Amino acid sequence: MNIIDVINKKRNNGELTREELEVAFNGFLKKEVKDYQMSALLMAICINGMSDQEVFDLTDIFINSGEILDLSSIPGVKVDKHSTGGVGDKTTLIVAPIVASLGIKVPKMSGRGLGLTGGTIDKLESIPGFRVEANKEQFLKQLNDIGMIICSQTDNLVPLDREVYSLRDVTGTVDSVPLIAVSIMSKKIASGADKILIDIKCGEGALLNDERTAKELRDLMIRIGNKYEKEVRCLISDMDTPLGYCVGNALEVAEAAELLEGKIKNNLYDLCVDIASNMVSMAKEISIIDAREEVIDAINSKKALDKFNQFINYQGGRLDDMPISDKTLEIKSTKKGIIKDINALIVARVSDSLGSGKTTVDDKIDPTVGVFLNKQVGDKVELGDTLCTLYYNKVQDNFNITDAFTIEEE
Amino acid sequence: MNIIDVINKKRNNGELTREELEVAFNGFLKKEVKDYQMSALLMAICINGMSDQEVFDLTDIFINSGEILDLSSIPGVKVDKHSTGGVGDKTTLIVAPIVASLGIKVPKMSGRGLGLTGGTIDKLESIPGFRVEANKEQFLKQLNDIGMIICSQTDNLVPLDREVYSLRDVTGTVDSVPLIAVSIMSKKIASGADKILIDIKCGEGALLNDERTAKELRDLMIRIGNKYEKEVRCLISDMDTPLGYCVGNALEVAEAAELLEGKIKNNLYDLCVDIASNMVSMAKEISIIDAREEVIDAINSKKALDKFNQFINYQGGRLDDMPISDKTLEIKSTKKGIIKDINALIVARVSDSLGSGKTTVDDKIDPTVGVFLNKQVGDKVELGDTLCTLYYNKVQDNFNITDAFTIEEE
Repeated sequence: MNIIDVINKKRNNGELTREELEVAFNGFLKKEVKDYQMSALLMAICINGMSDQEVFDLTDIFINSGEILDLSSIPGVKVDKHSTGGVGDKTTLIVAPIVASLGIKVPKMSGRGLGLTGGTIDKLESIPGFRVEANKEQFLKQLNDIGMIICSQTDNLVPLDREVYSLRDVTGTVDSVPLIAVSIMSKKIASGADKILIDIKCGEGALLNDERTAKELRDLMIRIGNKYEKEVRCLISDMDTPLGYCVGNALEVAEAAELLEGKIKNNLYDLCVDIASNMVSMAKEISIIDAREEVIDAINSKKALDKFNQFINYQGGRLDDMPISDKTLEIKSTKKGIIKDINALIVARVSDSLGSGKTTVDDKIDPTVGVFLNKQVGDKVELGDTLCTLYYNKVQDNFNITDAFTIEEE
Repeated sequence: MNIIDVINKKRNNGELTREELEVAFNGFLKKEVKDYQMSALLMAICINGMSDQEVFDLTDIFINSGEILDLSSIPGVKVDKHSTGGVGDKTTLIVAPIVASLGIKVPKMSGRGLGLTGGTIDKLESIPGFRVEANKEQFLKQLNDIGMIICSQTDNLVPLDREVYSLRDVTGTVDSVPLIAVSIMSKKIASGADKILIDIKCGEGALLNDERTAKELRDLMIRIGNKYEKEVRCLISDMDTPLGYCVGNALEVAEAAELLEGKIKNNLYDLCVDIASNMVSMAKEISIIDAREEVIDAINSKKALDKFNQFINYQGGRLDDMPISDKTLEIKSTKKGIIKDINALIVARVSDSLGSGKTTVDDKIDPTVGVFLNKQVGDKVELGDTLCTLYYNKVQDNFNITDAFTIEEE
C-alpha cells in the first residue's frame, strides 16, 4: 500500500484503516509523503469527512507523534481549557486565575495567533519581562507552586499537528470538523490534564460560522475525550461581536486585569463566569450552580486577581510597565440611534491593520496598538458620540471601522 | 481574490469563474501557486466536478498556455486521433497509415507512457534510427510530403497540461472526467487538426473502468469540440483483455506491420478498422459503410502497408534492424478448457516488470522485451499448451502471468 492508494481510497469516500492513516501522516512527518500529496488527502478529508474510527485513530497518531506530558506527580485534579479563537478573546487570562484561586490545577499551553488577531501567547508577550517559554521541569514546578501556568506549546508536543496545520492554512483545508477535532483534542490530551473545557466560538468572527457545525464539532470532541477517559465539556459561544471592550494585545491584558478587579460586567464577564463555572464543576464534581457561586466569590473577593498577579510575577512579567500607545484616534458616530451589531471581523481586520495581528508568519506584532470599543451592542448613541478609540503607532490611510457598527434609528 | 479563496470556493462546490481558474492555473505555471495548493484544488475538482462552462474556460486556459499549431498552409482535411491508453494499444501505428493512404492528412503528436506499458513514442523508439522529434517546419513539410507524421509532442504545446498531469499522477487526482477531457481536448485542439477521433478505453486495463463514466467523458469531449468548431467522434472500446497478440514496444511495432501485411484478423484488427473508418467518414463526409470499404481495401491492397513503410523510412527508421530479445520463456497451461478471459492489467504488469514500461520517470525502457499471447480469448487449450511467451533480458523471479488467464473446463 502506498500513499497514492490511500489518497484514492479517501477520494472515493472509503474509510481509511489505522495503517493507511499511519502511511500518510507518519510518512508526512518523515517527509516521505510530499506536501502536495498530503494537501490532496486533506482536501479529500475536508469534502468526504471521516468516520469516528478514523478520527480516533488519527488523534492517536497525532498524540504519539511527540511527547506526552505526565502530570501524575502533581496532586489534585488538573483542568485545561481551549478556545477555538475569537476576536477579543482574552478569556484564558481571566478564567485560569479564577479556577486556580479555587484550588484547582490549571496547566495551560497556548498558541500564537495567525490569521485574525493575536493568540494568548502574543497577548502575554505585551507584558515586559514575561517568559512565555517553560521546559518540563519549570512547567511542573510552577503548576505545583502556584497551581497554574500559561506558556507556549513546546516543540515536541504533537509535532504532527504543527506540520499539518501549517499546510492546511495555505491550502484551503482549514474548515473540516474532523481535522479541527483531531488538532484540538490531540494537543489537549498530550498536555496531560484530566478534564478539559472547550469554548467553541461560532459566528462572523470565528472559524465556524454556523451552529450546526459547532454542535458537530462539540459532539465529536466529547467522543474523542471519552476514548481517553477524559471528561470533556464544550460551550458554544457567540462570536458575531467582539468579546469585551478591547481588541489588541496589551489592551486585552489590561482589560483582563480590570475584569478581575471587578470593574467590568459585560459579555466577556458572562462568558468567563460560564467557562470557569464549568471547569470548577468538573474538577470538584459539584453542580454548575454551586460552582458559579464559588467563581463569582473568587472575583468579588479579589482572590482571582491575586492569583492573576501572582502568575504574572512568577513568569517574570511587570504589568505596571506594560506600554499602550499614546497616539489615539476617536471615531465619532455620524448617526443617532441604537447599536444593533458590532461586526467582529471588521474590528479584527482594523486591529490587525494597526499591527496587533500577523497576516504572514514573518510579520511582527505591535503589542501597544488596538481598538477600544467605547460603545457596545444595545447602547444608545447620539450624533458625534465616540463609537471607538483606535490606539495606533503608524498612521493608516483608511480605517473603515464605522462599517463595523450597525446603528438603527429609533 | 487569491488562491486560497479559489480553493475554498471549489471545496464548497462553487462554480469558478474564468478569472478564478486563471489565478489558479496560470499562477501554477508561473510557480506563484504552489504544487501543494494546486493538488488541493485538483482534489476538490475530482470530488466536486466541474460545470461545462468551467471545463470550456479551463480548456481555453490550457490551450493558450503554449503555442497553437497552424496547419492551414497544408491543403486538405486534417484528422487527428487519440486513445486514452490501453494494454497492447498500437492502433495509432496502424490507423494513421491506413487513413493517410486514402489521401487524408494525419498530423499526430503522441506521448510517452507512464504507468502501464509504453506510449506510441516509446514504441516507435524501438525502431533503430527512428526520429521521434520534429520541429514545426519538419512537421509541416512531412505532413505535406507524405500526408502523415507521428512525433512526440513539442515542449511548447500545452505546457500547462504537462505540469498539471505530472502533479495529478502523484496525488491521486487522475480519475476525473473534466480533468481528463481538458487534458485530451486542449492538446488535440492546439495540435491544429480539423476533425478528431477519440478512442476511449474502458475496462480492467484502462484509466476508466465503467461504461457510464466513459460515456460522460465522450459527451463532454464532443461538447468541447463543438465550442471550437471541431468535429469530434468518440469510440468506447473494451480494455479488459489486451489488444492483439503483443505487449511490449518492438513486439507491438512488429505486430502493427504484420496486421498491415494482412496476416492478422483479431480484436486489434476490428478496432483499427473501426477507428480508421470513422476518421475517413469524417474527413470525406461519407457514410461509415462506404468508409469501411475504403479502409479494408487499403489494407488488402497493401496501400496502407506502403504508407507505413514510407512513414517509418521518412523519419529515419530501419525496421529490418529492430531487435527483439532472443531469450524467451514459454508459459504452459496447467489446465484444459476454454480461455474465458485474459486480464489486461496483469499482462501489462508482467510486461512492465520485464522492462517494457516505466514505473518512475527515471526508469529506462527495454524495447526488446514483452509478452506474446499465443492464445486469445475463446481459444481451446490442452494441458501443456503454450499460453504465452515472455521475451526477457533479465531473469525475473516470479512472473505470475498464468493468473491473467481464466480457463474454464468444458
